[in-house]
Amino acid sequence: MNGKTIPRVVIVGAGFGGLNAATALAGAPVNVTVIDRQNYHTFQPLLYQVATAGLSPGEIAEPIRTILRRHKNIEVLMSEVTGFDLLRRVVETSDHEVPYDALIVAAGASHAYFGHDEWRPFAPGLKTIEDALEIRRRVLLAFELAERCAFAGEPDEPLNFVVVGAGPTGVELAGTLAEICRNALAGDFRSIEPRRTRIHLIEGGPHVLPSYPEDLSRSALKQLQGLGVEVRTNAMVTKIEPGVIFIGQTRTNAAVILWAAGVAASPLGTKLGTAVDRAGRVLVNPDLSIPGHPEVFVIGDLAALRDKGGKLLPGVAPVAISEGRFVAKTIRREIEHGPGSLGGSSPREAFHYRDKGSLATIGRAAAVAKFGRIHISGYIAWLAWLFIHILFLIGLQNRALVLIQWAWSYFTHERGARLITGGVNLPGWNTLHSANRISIDTDSVESKQEISVPMSKSA
Amino acid sequence: MNGKTIPRVVIVGAGFGGLNAATALAGAPVNVTVIDRQNYHTFQPLLYQVATAGLSPGEIAEPIRTILRRHKNIEVLMSEVTGFDLLRRVVETSDHEVPYDALIVAAGASHAYFGHDEWRPFAPGLKTIEDALEIRRRVLLAFELAERCAFAGEPDEPLNFVVVGAGPTGVELAGTLAEICRNALAGDFRSIEPRRTRIHLIEGGPHVLPSYPEDLSRSALKQLQGLGVEVRTNAMVTKIEPGVIFIGQTRTNAAVILWAAGVAASPLGTKLGTAVDRAGRVLVNPDLSIPGHPEVFVIGDLAALRDKGGKLLPGVAPVAISEGRFVAKTIRREIEHGPGSLGGSSPREAFHYRDKGSLATIGRAAAVAKFGRIHISGYIAWLAWLFIHILFLIGLQNRALVLIQWAWSYFTHERGARLITGGVNLPGWNTLHSANRISIDTDSVESKQEISVPMSKSA
Repeated sequence: MNGKTIPRVVIVGAGFGGLNAATALAGAPVNVTVIDRQNYHTFQPLLYQVATAGLSPGEIAEPIRTILRRHKNIEVLMSEVTGFDLLRRVVETSDHEVPYDALIVAAGASHAYFGHDEWRPFAPGLKTIEDALEIRRRVLLAFELAERCAFAGEPDEPLNFVVVGAGPTGVELAGTLAEICRNALAGDFRSIEPRRTRIHLIEGGPHVLPSYPEDLSRSALKQLQGLGVEVRTNAMVTKIEPGVIFIGQTRTNAAVILWAAGVAASPLGTKLGTAVDRAGRVLVNPDLSIPGHPEVFVIGDLAALRDKGGKLLPGVAPVAISEGRFVAKTIRREIEHGPGSLGGSSPREAFHYRDKGSLATIGRAAAVAKFGRIHISGYIAWLAWLFIHILFLIGLQNRALVLIQWAWSYFTHERGARLITGGVNLPGWNTLHSANRISIDTDSVESKQEISVPMSKSA
Repeated sequence: MNGKTIPRVVIVGAGFGGLNAATALAGAPVNVTVIDRQNYHTFQPLLYQVATAGLSPGEIAEPIRTILRRHKNIEVLMSEVTGFDLLRRVVETSDHEVPYDALIVAAGASHAYFGHDEWRPFAPGLKTIEDALEIRRRVLLAFELAERCAFAGEPDEPLNFVVVGAGPTGVELAGTLAEICRNALAGDFRSIEPRRTRIHLIEGGPHVLPSYPEDLSRSALKQLQGLGVEVRTNAMVTKIEPGVIFIGQTRTNAAVILWAAGVAASPLGTKLGTAVDRAGRVLVNPDLSIPGHPEVFVIGDLAALRDKGGKLLPGVAPVAISEGRFVAKTIRREIEHGPGSLGGSSPREAFHYRDKGSLATIGRAAAVAKFGRIHISGYIAWLAWLFIHILFLIGLQNRALVLIQWAWSYFTHERGARLITGGVNLPGWNTLHSANRISIDTDSVESKQEISVPMSKSA
């Protein structure tokens, strides 16, 4: 397998960037090794559908091996990359080293809590399948616990759901949560009234969807309000405690708090020993390589690259995809002169991103879209979003399944995947507590208890 | 809701028995409260499909509220039942009491380790969605870890998978695992050869599918061997350690050990203060009530009832379903005379089970079926199994989804749900071991962390 003479390209991360770099190297005179700590690729644009019980994990994820199977020069390793040795040209993983001639780091990014990582357990973000299932679990559990309290005779206070950050993910979550409460869950309870649930969308800036043109931001705001979402812009989160969020000076009890703000690049970026920006993104050369190492490339959300206008390329799939393909082309062109020849030949061309447009969905039949100068809102934009996302969903089977699910919930308002998993037992409120414990990254037992206590007052 | 005059029927458990009792009481002059610790009903006959990555949890489970939504006299409580007070007629849950006039206990059963509960973590069984995901995780991880070792230069030893118990579940698991190794996974790896995986099916008795007529057992054995399963009957498991199983005196290294033997009724059975059999099943009267309490019924896997022949009714869905409906009919008839009138009127008729036949699938186009005197094997039996299971699957949407998945994997040999969830990190083999810890059931905080972390990530 590990041919001595055939150069090896190692790709770290099987997101949109890594996968497209790999497939663009299929059949090239190189051995490609794709390393990811998951065995599946996640179609991140639809994660919010798993979080809101519309889809099952299996429908928006596909095993990496299945995707790359037919490319015989590509192998997949499920392993955790811990670092790099750029001098010896090896990738360090949890249990062995993988040598490379060319390295593509596409480890992606997660969300930032603006220096308040202690908020993480109380306000989970949405980047992985696990995140999505944890959010689903908290949302559905909130209603189940409320129903139990009401059944036991306690007054039925309407629940507060708070989504922090009004970028595409925050808007999707808020809009879809509003729909679920008004439709999917409406008739299901006897002692509480899910329709009364208040969905709050908190944005630090002046507009929702800040990266979109102002007319579309305004339209998105109207569509959100139409769904009953209470939007607050120029609002700053000052503190988060279990079941409680402070916006400015005002304190709000929240059954569920979701975090959709900020960007924190993968810690692997800093392991490359080159400069990173405040979000931890690697400052790459115009050809996406890193200074002094023409054989090492960084792409996708982990790379900080500015367009001619000096504007940072957004952390979206289309950018990652074209960066992956661009880097693969560079390697193909240069590697023919044998390993080590990377960057040796004529100066490289710079990567340029051609923006094909952007879409954000808000809810059922609600979305905004921008294709060059054309701005669309509402139903048409939503249809475009639907069409494009089913089209780009990986796996013919997944497309069929998602299509059915969406057609189904469009007509019935039903949500197919409303399972609370992640806790076999429900020992009273403790489950919500353990739900908190779950997402904590610290090992200290104390902090786990601290969280549990007040949470019971909420929900 | 909790009408004073209207009698309340409390149903514990929303499996096949509980759900059918509930729907049979829909519209009756009673308030029905269904209590389950999960928010969903699991279609257990297809659990092995989730365990073997053929289906997603959402496709074989349906929220209990959704199933019962349109019956206005039925309410659902997601809560953990801890005990009963038969004198005060209340069900005790983790956080409050639920009074009843009539009680139906349908808490089901799990598997027994024959007094060796210490084996549980090393050989998980298959009763819940969580079990299924844990088994899927172990099976897929075994291959990923083997590939990594082979990539790192270690010799590629064929993996051993051992299934203990050759009842319907054990046969389904062994047969399907054999198929996956030969088909779905075959082309996916570069350094190992999944085809070489050895699937062992261990049965203590003389036949596979002991509850089936001998000709069908023989046919099942042939079909299993045709799939490459190594069947050993009259074989006794003497010891299980992490990754090691002892059968008689022989020691076998096993990458995955699955437990499909023995029956242990829900511990709630013993909380009723009446006699139980060795498996913990409640010895019920012929009318499925318990001695001295005509208002308390036990149904499904938790009930021990013998037919005229003195043979114990099997723990299968059809029995639970007809018991649920029978008990509901009894309550409907007697409750009209007001609460407390249960059992007061004329002597009750005894429950009789009319066996409509039984089916067991072995793998793709392989199954056995028995309808009265008619015994079928192979393709026809498999088609019957397919048809019946899609038909009885709850939820029109699920039927469509499962139909697609099955058609798909029938023609492509592909498995749609091959996601390893339940652990974001993969710190070498330790993961397999920590995965083992998951199923440990103890209250110490330390182990709680071990429990909550991976479990939370499952599904």
